[in-house]
Amino acid sequence: MTRFDQIAADRAAARQATLTKPAGSLGRLEALAVFMAGWQGTDRPTLDRAQALVFAGNHGITAQGVTPFPPAVTAAMVANFRAGGAAINQLCRVAGADLGSVALDLDRPTADFTQGPAMTSAEVDDAMAQGAAAVDPTAQVLLLGEMGIGNSTTSAALAAATFGGRAEDWVGPGTGAQGAMLAAKVRVVTEGLTRHAVTGTHDTLAAFGGREQAAICGAVRRARDLRIPVILDGFICTAAAAVLTRDDPDALSHCLIGHESAEQGHRRLIASLAMQPVLSLDMRLGEGSGAAVALLVLRAALECHNGMATFAEAGIV
Amino acid sequence: MTRFDQIAADRAAARQATLTKPAGSLGRLEALAVFMAGWQGTDRPTLDRAQALVFAGNHGITAQGVTPFPPAVTAAMVANFRAGGAAINQLCRVAGADLGSVALDLDRPTADFTQGPAMTSAEVDDAMAQGAAAVDPTAQVLLLGEMGIGNSTTSAALAAATFGGRAEDWVGPGTGAQGAMLAAKVRVVTEGLTRHAVTGTHDTLAAFGGREQAAICGAVRRARDLRIPVILDGFICTAAAAVLTRDDPDALSHCLIGHESAEQGHRRLIASLAMQPVLSLDMRLGEGSGAAVALLVLRAALECHNGMATFAEAGIV
Repeated sequence: MTRFDQIAADRAAARQATLTKPAGSLGRLEALAVFMAGWQGTDRPTLDRAQALVFAGNHGITAQGVTPFPPAVTAAMVANFRAGGAAINQLCRVAGADLGSVALDLDRPTADFTQGPAMTSAEVDDAMAQGAAAVDPTAQVLLLGEMGIGNSTTSAALAAATFGGRAEDWVGPGTGAQGAMLAAKVRVVTEGLTRHAVTGTHDTLAAFGGREQAAICGAVRRARDLRIPVILDGFICTAAAAVLTRDDPDALSHCLIGHESAEQGHRRLIASLAMQPVLSLDMRLGEGSGAAVALLVLRAALECHNGMATFAEAGIV
Repeated sequence: MTRFDQIAADRAAARQATLTKPAGSLGRLEALAVFMAGWQGTDRPTLDRAQALVFAGNHGITAQGVTPFPPAVTAAMVANFRAGGAAINQLCRVAGADLGSVALDLDRPTADFTQGPAMTSAEVDDAMAQGAAAVDPTAQVLLLGEMGIGNSTTSAALAAATFGGRAEDWVGPGTGAQGAMLAAKVRVVTEGLTRHAVTGTHDTLAAFGGREQAAICGAVRRARDLRIPVILDGFICTAAAAVLTRDDPDALSHCLIGHESAEQGHRRLIASLAMQPVLSLDMRLGEGSGAAVALLVLRAALECHNGMATFAEAGIV
C-alpha cells in the first residue's frame, strides 16, 4: 500500500477538532499533523526516527563557466558534512534528524549537456538505485538535500524541460552567478533544451543530470513505496523531484516542500507543482537546510497534536 | 545600557561571512543571529535560558456580545496552561522555553470601554508592574503571549487608536466571530474610538485595556532595560506592544514578531510597525504559540552561527 490513509487522516482531523483551541487556529500545524497521519497510517503520527540524506554529484556543465565555485568544492563540502562543520549538520542536530551523505562518483562528473546527454541510461539507473538504497526503511520522515557545484544550472534545465518556459524563467544566481556568468547559465540551458527532446522522467534525467538529482528521484520513489513522508529542500531538490511528475502526476503527494528558496525559479516551480512551502526564510543554501528547519515546524505540529488536552479532558465545555 | 550593541552585531556579521556557505545563503537565519548578537551584546549569542510568559485578563467588553466564548474560558485556559494541556505547553517543551502564566485579576474584568475607560490609571500601572516583575532577568530571550476572551476586540481598538484607520480595518473574527457578532465588534470599536481621545501609551491602555495587554507593555519595557530580546506573538500581543510606540517610536527595536497571524488586522499592524514576521503559518491561536514556533527558528539560526566551520577551518579556500 503506497497510498495516503484517508481513514487515519480523518481520525487525526477529528482529534484536532476536540483539542483546547478554537477550531483551525493552529493553521498549517493542523494540516501538517493530518498529512503525517495519512502517510504514517496512524491518527497519532510520531517523529522518533527522522532521516536526512544529502546527495552530492559533479557536473560537466561547469566547464561552461556557470558558477563562481570550482567543482572541487563539492568534495570539500562532503568532507565538511562528514566532519560536522556544515549548516546541515547543525540543523539536523537541532531538529533531531540523522544525517547521511552520499557522494555519487564525484571523480566522474556528468557530461556537458550542451554537447550530449549528461548521463547514460545505465548511469541514471545506478544513481536512482543509490538514492533508493540510502533510504532507511524505518524512518518516519525523510529529508532530502543536495550538494553539487553547477547544479542550479542543471536544475533550471530540468525545470524548463518538465514545465516549459524559457531558460530565463528558471535560471537564477545560484551560489552567486552575476553578469556574464548568469548570461552563460541562460545560454547553456537554452542550448540544452534545444538539443534534448525529452518527455519522461528517465530521459530527462539522462539529458541534464545530475547524479545527485537522479538519486533524489530514486529516494522519493523508494520513500513512497515505504509510505515515508518526505520533506524536499529548495530549488535544486524540488527541480529534481519534479521530474518524477513527468511519469506520474501524483509522484510527490507524499512530499512537503520545506521552504521557498530565494532562488527565483523556486517560486515558479512550487506554483507549477501546486504545492505550498512550509517556510519562507529567504534561504538559498541547499544541503537540505530548509527541509531541516521545516522539520522543526513538523515537530511542533505533532507535539500539539499528540500532547494537547481535549476540551473534555480540560473540563471546558 | 539599553541599546543594541553594534560592535557585537558587526562581529557576528563578519563571522557569518566566513562560514562554509555562499554569502547570505542562510537568509533570515543570518539576520536573526546578528539581531541576537546585538541585543545580547556578544558575537556568539546563546539560548540556554528562554522564558515564555502568558498573561491573562478578562474584559468588560464581552458584555456586548463580541465573542463566541464565555469569559469563564479565560480562567479555564489558565488552568489548562498550569496543567500542561494547552498548545503553548507543547510548543514550549519542543522549543525549550520555560513557561509561566500570570493571571491578572480574572475576577475583576476591565470596564466596558464603550461606557468609560477600561481601567483606571492605577490599574494600568499595576498591570504594567506585574508584567515587568514577571520577567526573568537571566533570560536570554523572552516570548510573550496572552489569553483573554474578548481581547481581539480590545486589540482592534488599541491598534486603531495607535495607527488610525476605521474599526473595520482592524476587526477580524478572532476566535470565530461572524455575522452579527462581527458587526458588534466593529460597532463597539467605533464607539470606543469616538469616546476616548487618547494620545500616549498609558492613556491608550487605560481607555481600552486589557490588563494582560498592559502587562505585555510592562514586560517589553522591562526586557528592553535588561537588553533581553523579545519574541512577540500574533495580533493581540503585537497590538499591545505597539501601544508603546506612542511614547517611543523605538520601543520595539529589541522585539521580533514571531509570526504573521491569520487574523486580518495583523498584517496591517506589522506593516504599520515596519517589521517583518519570522513565520507565516496561518496560525491564530494566541497564547504565545507563534512566538514559540519562531523560537525554534531562532535556535536553528544560532546553531548554524555558533556551530558551523569557517572556510579556513574546513580547508576550503
